[in-house]
Amino acid sequence: MAEPKPAGRRVPEVRDVPIGIDATGTRTETDSLGPVAVPADHYWGAQTQRSLVHFDIGDDRMPKAVYHAYGYVKKAAAIVNARAGRMPQWKADLIARVADEVIAGDLDSEFPLYVWQTGSGTQSNMNVNEVISNRAIQLVGGKLGSKTPVHPNDDVNMGQSSNDTFPTAMHIAAVVAIEEHLLPALARLHDATVVKSREWADVVKIGRTHLEDATPLTVGQEWSGYAAQLEDAVEHLASTRRGLYRLAMGGTAVGTGLNAPTGFGEDTAAVIAELTGRPFVTAPNKFAAQASLDPLVRTSAALRGIATALFKFANDIRWLGSGPRTGLHELLLPANEPGSSIMPGKVNPTQAEAMLMVCVQVLGSDTAVAIGGNEGNFELNAFRPVVISNVLHSIRILADAAEHFREFLVEGVRLDRDQLRQNVDRSVMMVTALSPVIGYDKASEIAHLAIDDGLSLKEAALRRGVSDEMYERIVVPEDLTHAG
Amino acid sequence: MAEPKPAGRRVPEVRDVPIGIDATGTRTETDSLGPVAVPADHYWGAQTQRSLVHFDIGDDRMPKAVYHAYGYVKKAAAIVNARAGRMPQWKADLIARVADEVIAGDLDSEFPLYVWQTGSGTQSNMNVNEVISNRAIQLVGGKLGSKTPVHPNDDVNMGQSSNDTFPTAMHIAAVVAIEEHLLPALARLHDATVVKSREWADVVKIGRTHLEDATPLTVGQEWSGYAAQLEDAVEHLASTRRGLYRLAMGGTAVGTGLNAPTGFGEDTAAVIAELTGRPFVTAPNKFAAQASLDPLVRTSAALRGIATALFKFANDIRWLGSGPRTGLHELLLPANEPGSSIMPGKVNPTQAEAMLMVCVQVLGSDTAVAIGGNEGNFELNAFRPVVISNVLHSIRILADAAEHFREFLVEGVRLDRDQLRQNVDRSVMMVTALSPVIGYDKASEIAHLAIDDGLSLKEAALRRGVSDEMYERIVVPEDLTHAG
Amino acid sequence: MAEPKPAGRRVPEVRDVPIGIDATGTRTETDSLGPVAVPADHYWGAQTQRSLVHFDIGDDRMPKAVYHAYGYVKKAAAIVNARAGRMPQWKADLIARVADEVIAGDLDSEFPLYVWQTGSGTQSNMNVNEVISNRAIQLVGGKLGSKTPVHPNDDVNMGQSSNDTFPTAMHIAAVVAIEEHLLPALARLHDATVVKSREWADVVKIGRTHLEDATPLTVGQEWSGYAAQLEDAVEHLASTRRGLYRLAMGGTAVGTGLNAPTGFGEDTAAVIAELTGRPFVTAPNKFAAQASLDPLVRTSAALRGIATALFKFANDIRWLGSGPRTGLHELLLPANEPGSSIMPGKVNPTQAEAMLMVCVQVLGSDTAVAIGGNEGNFELNAFRPVVISNVLHSIRILADAAEHFREFLVEGVRLDRDQLRQNVDRSVMMVTALSPVIGYDKASEIAHLAIDDGLSLKEAALRRGVSDEMYERIVVPEDLTHAG
Amino acid sequence: MAEPKPAGRRVPEVRDVPIGIDATGTRTETDSLGPVAVPADHYWGAQTQRSLVHFDIGDDRMPKAVYHAYGYVKKAAAIVNARAGRMPQWKADLIARVADEVIAGDLDSEFPLYVWQTGSGTQSNMNVNEVISNRAIQLVGGKLGSKTPVHPNDDVNMGQSSNDTFPTAMHIAAVVAIEEHLLPALARLHDATVVKSREWADVVKIGRTHLEDATPLTVGQEWSGYAAQLEDAVEHLASTRRGLYRLAMGGTAVGTGLNAPTGFGEDTAAVIAELTGRPFVTAPNKFAAQASLDPLVRTSAALRGIATALFKFANDIRWLGSGPRTGLHELLLPANEPGSSIMPGKVNPTQAEAMLMVCVQVLGSDTAVAIGGNEGNFELNAFRPVVISNVLHSIRILADAAEHFREFLVEGVRLDRDQLRQNVDRSVMMVTALSPVIGYDKASEIAHLAIDDGLSLKEAALRRGVSDEMYERIVVPEDLTHAG
Repeated sequence: MAEPKPAGRRVPEVRDVPIGIDATGTRTETDSLGPVAVPADHYWGAQTQRSLVHFDIGDDRMPKAVYHAYGYVKKAAAIVNARAGRMPQWKADLIARVADEVIAGDLDSEFPLYVWQTGSGTQSNMNVNEVISNRAIQLVGGKLGSKTPVHPNDDVNMGQSSNDTFPTAMHIAAVVAIEEHLLPALARLHDATVVKSREWADVVKIGRTHLEDATPLTVGQEWSGYAAQLEDAVEHLASTRRGLYRLAMGGTAVGTGLNAPTGFGEDTAAVIAELTGRPFVTAPNKFAAQASLDPLVRTSAALRGIATALFKFANDIRWLGSGPRTGLHELLLPANEPGSSIMPGKVNPTQAEAMLMVCVQVLGSDTAVAIGGNEGNFELNAFRPVVISNVLHSIRILADAAEHFREFLVEGVRLDRDQLRQNVDRSVMMVTALSPVIGYDKASEIAHLAIDDGLSLKEAALRRGVSDEMYERIVVPEDLTHAG
Repeated sequence: MAEPKPAGRRVPEVRDVPIGIDATGTRTETDSLGPVAVPADHYWGAQTQRSLVHFDIGDDRMPKAVYHAYGYVKKAAAIVNARAGRMPQWKADLIARVADEVIAGDLDSEFPLYVWQTGSGTQSNMNVNEVISNRAIQLVGGKLGSKTPVHPNDDVNMGQSSNDTFPTAMHIAAVVAIEEHLLPALARLHDATVVKSREWADVVKIGRTHLEDATPLTVGQEWSGYAAQLEDAVEHLASTRRGLYRLAMGGTAVGTGLNAPTGFGEDTAAVIAELTGRPFVTAPNKFAAQASLDPLVRTSAALRGIATALFKFANDIRWLGSGPRTGLHELLLPANEPGSSIMPGKVNPTQAEAMLMVCVQVLGSDTAVAIGGNEGNFELNAFRPVVISNVLHSIRILADAAEHFREFLVEGVRLDRDQLRQNVDRSVMMVTALSPVIGYDKASEIAHLAIDDGLSLKEAALRRGVSDEMYERIVVPEDLTHAG
Repeated sequence: MAEPKPAGRRVPEVRDVPIGIDATGTRTETDSLGPVAVPADHYWGAQTQRSLVHFDIGDDRMPKAVYHAYGYVKKAAAIVNARAGRMPQWKADLIARVADEVIAGDLDSEFPLYVWQTGSGTQSNMNVNEVISNRAIQLVGGKLGSKTPVHPNDDVNMGQSSNDTFPTAMHIAAVVAIEEHLLPALARLHDATVVKSREWADVVKIGRTHLEDATPLTVGQEWSGYAAQLEDAVEHLASTRRGLYRLAMGGTAVGTGLNAPTGFGEDTAAVIAELTGRPFVTAPNKFAAQASLDPLVRTSAALRGIATALFKFANDIRWLGSGPRTGLHELLLPANEPGSSIMPGKVNPTQAEAMLMVCVQVLGSDTAVAIGGNEGNFELNAFRPVVISNVLHSIRILADAAEHFREFLVEGVRLDRDQLRQNVDRSVMMVTALSPVIGYDKASEIAHLAIDDGLSLKEAALRRGVSDEMYERIVVPEDLTHAG
Repeated sequence: MAEPKPAGRRVPEVRDVPIGIDATGTRTETDSLGPVAVPADHYWGAQTQRSLVHFDIGDDRMPKAVYHAYGYVKKAAAIVNARAGRMPQWKADLIARVADEVIAGDLDSEFPLYVWQTGSGTQSNMNVNEVISNRAIQLVGGKLGSKTPVHPNDDVNMGQSSNDTFPTAMHIAAVVAIEEHLLPALARLHDATVVKSREWADVVKIGRTHLEDATPLTVGQEWSGYAAQLEDAVEHLASTRRGLYRLAMGGTAVGTGLNAPTGFGEDTAAVIAELTGRPFVTAPNKFAAQASLDPLVRTSAALRGIATALFKFANDIRWLGSGPRTGLHELLLPANEPGSSIMPGKVNPTQAEAMLMVCVQVLGSDTAVAIGGNEGNFELNAFRPVVISNVLHSIRILADAAEHFREFLVEGVRLDRDQLRQNVDRSVMMVTALSPVIGYDKASEIAHLAIDDGLSLKEAALRRGVSDEMYERIVVPEDLTHAG
C-alpha cells in the first residue's frame, strides 16, 4: 500500500474566485454511506446534506458564532500541520485562506444545520470540513465533490476529531461573544448606573424592607447597590473565562490524541491564541475536556448571576416608577411608546419588563444547560449543541437587553422629588433613630401610636414624652442615611 | 362634543388590491406620543416602529402563530361589534377580510416584533391593529396612516384591550399548534411503537433493573412500556386543552369588561369557536384569565411530560443500540449518516441524541414558563411573551423531533437476535424462578456460586442440589415472561 | 428436593405482646451476604442495618407516609396470597395484623432509613419485610432473626418485588397525603378567599396593569381572581390522581409478574382499594408503571400549579399591604408579631413571605422530580426516593402554608377604605371610559394633560372640551367595574 | 427624658449555672405586641413563641449551623460595642459567654424555629437575642423575661438589625460548612480517584463516544478525567468563598448603618475573622449585601457544579459496572448489600444511585435558590430562609454522599480485566489508526466490512489490502492510547 500523500505533488495555483457557485440543480457528493445529491449552488457535501434531511427540527440553527470559531480551529490546525511537515505549505495556506472567509462570516449561508443534530456536533464539524474542502477546490480550479486536492477528513480535519474540535469551537465562540458583546454592554450599563448613583447621592428617600416603610437612605445609595451587584456579577462572569480559555483540541477521538502528533494541542492552542489575541491554552486533561461541558455549565451559571442582578434592578425600577397616582412613583420612567391599546395616556415600564423576561429566559436556559452538562457518558458528552446554543443565546439577549435597558430606561430616568420628600415627611420608621436613646420598647409604643391614630411621628413622640429638642436633634432624615 | 362616528357616512368601495405597498423611503405615522417615520413599503404604524427601535433584543421574534391567532380575534370582534350595531357592517366586513389575510399568513412579513417587548403583548396587538387598519385603508383607497376610515384603536381594537386579546391569541395559537402539529406527530410515533411492540411480542430478552441483569421479558413487552408512557403523556396533554379553550376576551383592560358591551366575551368566543372549529368558550373569571397564565403553565408542564416519556424512550434506544462490539447491542439502529469525522465506519444514535436534547430544552423552557407564570401582579401578568414563545417553541420542536425519531429511528430499528439469545442463555437472574420453590436464601446461594465461579445458572443449580428435571421444568425463559 | 412449605405444619398461637423488644446490645441477623449485628431492641434485620451503615447521608429520612402505605401493600398481598392458597390463613392473618400496626404508625421508629439509598427503594421494602417478619415472629413466640415462621422474602414479600411494591406505596402515600391534607387545606383557603371576595364585592378600587394605574374594579372582583386561580389549580391537581390510582403491583421484578400468580395485580389493587376506601386499580401496563415515574412527575407539576396560583395571591397581598405611609396600603395585614429587631413598630407581611418561599421550594423540588423522572433505564426508574420525598414534602408544606396563610393572613385582612377611595379619586385612567365616545387619540391627550400638569382627570377633560354633564354621566367609578 | 443606661450601675456577679431551667408550665414573656405564655423550661421569649405558633409549616427547621454562626455575630458585636464604650465590659463579657454556648451547640434545643418564617430571618435573630438575654439573666441571677440587665434588642442586638446580621450568619454558616465538611470530603474522594487512576494507568480499554465503540484509552486515563472534573469544580467552589467572606454587618436596617457607630462593620468583621480563623471582611457595599443574596446564589451554582462532575462520575461507574452477564461489566462494584427482594444474588450500583439522586436534589435546590435570589425588593431580599436552608442542605448531602461514594464504592472497585481485554480484541474502531495512512474513506470501508460480515478488524483489513506487517505495526492498542 502506497504512502497516501505524494511528496512530489506539484503546487496548485490559487485563483481569486469570489464566493459563490454558478450552478443550478444538484451535484453528487459522497461519503462513506454513498452518494448524495446536494444543491449545486452550495459548497457543502454529503454529510451536511444528510443532516439537513434528517434533522430539520424546528427553526433553531447552530449559531453562526460556532462556525466563525471553527474557522480559527481549522486555520490553526492547518498551520500546525504544515509546520510539522504533515501537510504541504500550499495546502495549509489554502485552508487558512478559506478559514479566514469562514471567520469573517462570508460563508455563513453555507452553514445551514440545525441545533438538534448529533450530540457531538460532528455534523457541524463535517459541514465546515466539506465547505472548506470544496471552496478550496474551487480556488484551485478543481472539481467540487472530488475531495481533491483538499480532502474534508484527511486534510481539513487532519489531527482532529469533532470530539475535540467542537468543544474548542464552543469555547472560542463563547469567549468572543462574552468579550465583544456582553462585557462591554454590562460595563456601559454599570457606568450609567454609577452616574445616577452619584447624581442622586444626596437625595433622601424612605427605604423599604419587606416592601414596608423602613428607615431613610439616599437614592444614590440605593443605586450604588444596583451598581455593586452588577459589578460583582460581572467580575464572576469574567472569572469563568479561565475554564473557557482551555481548549480540548489535541485530544482527538477520545482524549488520547490518537492520530494527532505530540504537542498538537499545545501548538494549536498557541496559534489560536495568536490569531484571536486571547489567552487560549490547551486543556490540561483532555478526557475531562471532551467528556464534560463543565466550563460552559459554569459560564451559564455566571450568566444566570448577571440575570439575578439585573432582575432585582429592573424589578425595583418598575415598582419605583409605578403610578403615576396610586403607585410608589419615586421615579419618572421615560415614555418610549404608548402603553395601552385601550387606556389612553398610559406609560408602562416596558424596558424593565423586557429585561425581566430576558432574565427568566436565561434562568430557563441555564436549567437546560445544567441538565445537559450532567449527561456525559464515558469519553463524550453528547449534549453539546443544546448547551452551546443556550449559552450563546443567553449571552446575546443579556447583552442586547442591557444596552436597551441603559439607553431607553436608566439614562432617561428622572426623580419625582416631591413624592420622595413627602414620603420622608410622612414616614414613621425614623423612630428607629430614637431607639438607642429611649429604648426599643418605648420607641415601639410611639410608632404604634402614630400608625394607629394617624399621627405624624413627631406628634406621637411628643405625646409619649420625647422633648421637641431631642426629636429635632435626632430625627434628621439626612443624618439617618449614614452610620455613627 | 359631537358623536365621533357619523351615522350617515357612505360605505366605501373595497377594491381588490394585492398585498404590498409600492413605495420607497419612509411614511409618517402617528400615535399619542407624536409622529414616527416608518418604512413606506410596510403596513405597520407608529407603535410597531417604536417597538422595533426600542426592543431589537436578540433574534427572537414573536411567533407568527400568535399573529395568525390574532386574525381570529380581530375578525370575531368585528363580527360581534357589527351584530351589536356598534360598527357598520361594511367596516366589519373589511376588517374581517384583512383578518383572513392575517390568518392565512399572507401578512406575516408585517409582524416583525421581538419577543422581548412589553410584557402584556400590547405592541404585538398594536402591530396587528395598525396593519389591519392600513391594509383596510389601502383596500378602500384611503391614505395610509390616516387611521380613516378604519382606526387601529377605535375600530380594529373596538371592545378590546391587549390585556384580554393577547392571552386569547396565546390560547388559540397554542391549541392550534398542539392539535395540528404535536398530537398528530405523537400519534404517529405511538402507532409506530405499537407496531414494533407487536412485531416483537414473542422475542425473549433479559430485563435490566439498576442497569443490572434481571429476569427476562419480551422485546415487545419492553416496547409496550414506551407506547404506554407516551399514551398517558399524550392523554394528559390533551386534557390541558380544557384550560386553553377558555378565552380572556371580554375582560378588556383589567377584567371588568369596561368599554366592551355585555356578552362580548361570550359572543366573540362563540365566533372564534365557529371560525376555528374548536370548542373555545369565554373564561368564567376574567380577572384570573388576565392576571395569570396558569393554563399555559399547565400546558407547559404537560409538554414536559411528553419530554419525560420521550427521554426514557430515546435513552433506552441509544443504550440498547450501543456497540457494536462492546455495548449492549440488542438493537440495530439505522445508519443515517457517517458517525465520526475521525473514526471511519462509526454509526451513532444521532436521532436519539437529537430527541434527548430537545427534551432537555423543553425542560429548561418549562422552568422559564413556570417562573414567568408566578410573576403576575394585580390585574396583569406581564411575562406573557416569554411564556408563549417558550410554549410554542416546545410544541414545535417536540412535534418535529417526534416525526424524525419515528421516521429515521423507530421505523428502521431491527433486532440483533443473536445477541438477545446469547444474553438470555448467559444470564443468571432466571434463578428468581426457582426462588418460590427452593426459597430465596437457597436461590441466592446458587446465583452467587454461578457468578463467582463463572458457571452457567444450570451448572450452579445442579451443584446445589436442584434436579435436572426441576431446572428444565421451571427455568424456561419464555415462561418467565408472564405471571402465573 | 422437598417442598419448602410443609402442609401439615401446626398453626402457631398468636400472643398479645405489646410493641417493643426488651433487650440490649446487639442481635445477629443474616442475609445472603452473611451475618450482621443489629441493635437488639429493634425489629429490623440485616439489610436495614447494612443500609443504615452505607447510606447515612444527610438527615433526610424516607417519609413515614411511604411505610404506612407499605402496610397496605403487605396486608393486601398476604390476603390475596391466602385466598389463592399460596399462604396459610394463619400466616396471612399474622402478617395483616402487623401490617395494621405499620399502617397506624405504631412501628414508625423501626423505619430509620435515609432517602439517599438504592434508587429502587429496595432497602425500604426490605426494612418493612424484616420488621413485619420479626414482629410477627415475636407475636408467635419465635426467635427474632430466625425468619421462621414468617420469612421476610418468602412470606412477607411473596409475589412481590421492590420494583412493583415501592411505586405502589409511593402512589398510595401521595394520594393519602393529597386527599387528607392538601385538598382540605386548599378548600378552606379557597372558601375563605371567596368569603372576602363577596364581602368586598362592591368596594371600588383602582386596577393596576404593568404595576401602573389602570381602570377601576372592585376589591371583590380582584379576590374572585385569586379564588378562581386556586380553584382551577386544585381541579387540575385532583385530576392527576387518576394516574396515581394505578398501581404497579403485580409486575414483580421487571413488569412481567414473574413469581406472582395470574391476577395478583388486579386482586391486590382491589384489596388496597377496599382497605383505603379509594379507587385504586391495577396499572394497565406494568412495564411503564415500573420503568417510569410519570404519574408522580405529573402530580409534581400539578403541585407546582398550586404554587403558581398561591405565589400570585401572596405576592399581591404583600404589595397591597405595603406601607403604611409610603406603599400601596390598600390592605391592612394582621400584625402577628413585631416585624423588626431594630425598627420599632414595624409590621411585615410575614405569612405572605413564608408562602412565597414555600412556593419557590415547590418549584425547585419540581425541577428535581422532573429530572429524576427522565432517568429511567430499561425496566426500572432508579430515582424513586428523590422523587417521592420531594413530592410528599411539597404536599406537606403547601398544605401547612395554606392553612397558616388562611388563618393568620386572609381571614384577618381588612381594607384601608380611605386609601382605596383616594386612589380612585386621584386616578387618571378612568379616561378610558371616555375613549369610545371621544376617540382614543383625544382621550390620550386628556390623560397626558392631567399627568403633565398635575390636574385631576375631570379638570383635564373639561379643559379639552368634554362637558361637565358628559363627564359626570360616563366617569362613574362603580359603573366602570362591569361591562356594557 | 433620662439617659437610659445608668453609668453608676454596679456589675452583677456571674454564677456558674448549668444550662437548663428547672421549671414547668409556662412563663410570661412580652414584646411590643403584648404578653405571651412560653414554656417555662425554655429560654426563648415572646417573639420566638409567636413564630412557633404562626409558622409551624412542615418539619423544616432553620439549620442549627445558622445559629452557631449567629453566636459569632452576637459575640463580635458585644466585643466591639464594649470597646467603643457603648456597652459595659461586664455585659459584653456576659453576652460573649452565652454566645460561646450558642457557638458550641449547647443551646441548640432553644432554637426551634421553622424555615418558613419571615423572609428576613428576623424571627431567628430575635430567637437568638431572646435566648442570650434570658440565659445571661439566669447567669446573673435575674428574672427571666425581665430583659434586665441584658435586653434582647437594646443589648444583644445593639448596633444590629436582622437585615444585616442574618446574611452575616448565612455567610459564616455556609463558609464553615463548606470548609469543614464539603471540601475535605471532596478532597478525599478526589485523592481516592487519583489513586485508582494511577493504579490503572496502563490498563487498556475501549473508549466509547455516543455510547458506541471508539478508540482505546487506558482505564487510568478515563479516571483521570473524573479527577480533573472534580478538581476544577472544587477550585470553582473554593473561589466563590470570596463573596461569602464579605459580611453585611454594619448596614443595620437598610444598609446605611443607622444606629451603628462608624466602623462597626469593619470592626465586627475583624473580630469574626479572629474568632473563626477565616478571612471575613466587611462587605464593600451594604445596600447590595442586604438587598441581594448574590454570593449565595453563586455558591449554590458552584455546588451544582460539584453535582455536575459527580453525576458524570457516578453515572459512568454504574454503567461500567453493569451486568454481570449482559452489561458492560468492566468494573466489579463492591456488593454492599443484597440487591433485590425478589431476585436472589443481585448486586446493584446503589452508592452510585444515591449519589445521582443527591446530585438531582442539588440541582432542584439550586433552582429554588436562583429564583429566591431574583426576588429582592428595594433594601431587602426577603427569601433568605429558603436560600440558606437549601444551600446548607446541598453542602451537607454532597459532603456525606462524597464520603460514602468514596468509601463504599470507589475504594472497593476492581477491574474485570478479562472483559476489558476481550473488548479491546473485538473492537473495530482501532481502524482509526489506519486512517492517516490509508485515508478515511478506505478505512471506513474496512470498518463496515468487519461489522457487516462479523469479521475481526484485522481480517477485514487484510481482505481490503492492508498488509499483515502494516497492521501489526500500527494497530497496537497500547500505542493508540497516546498522541504522536
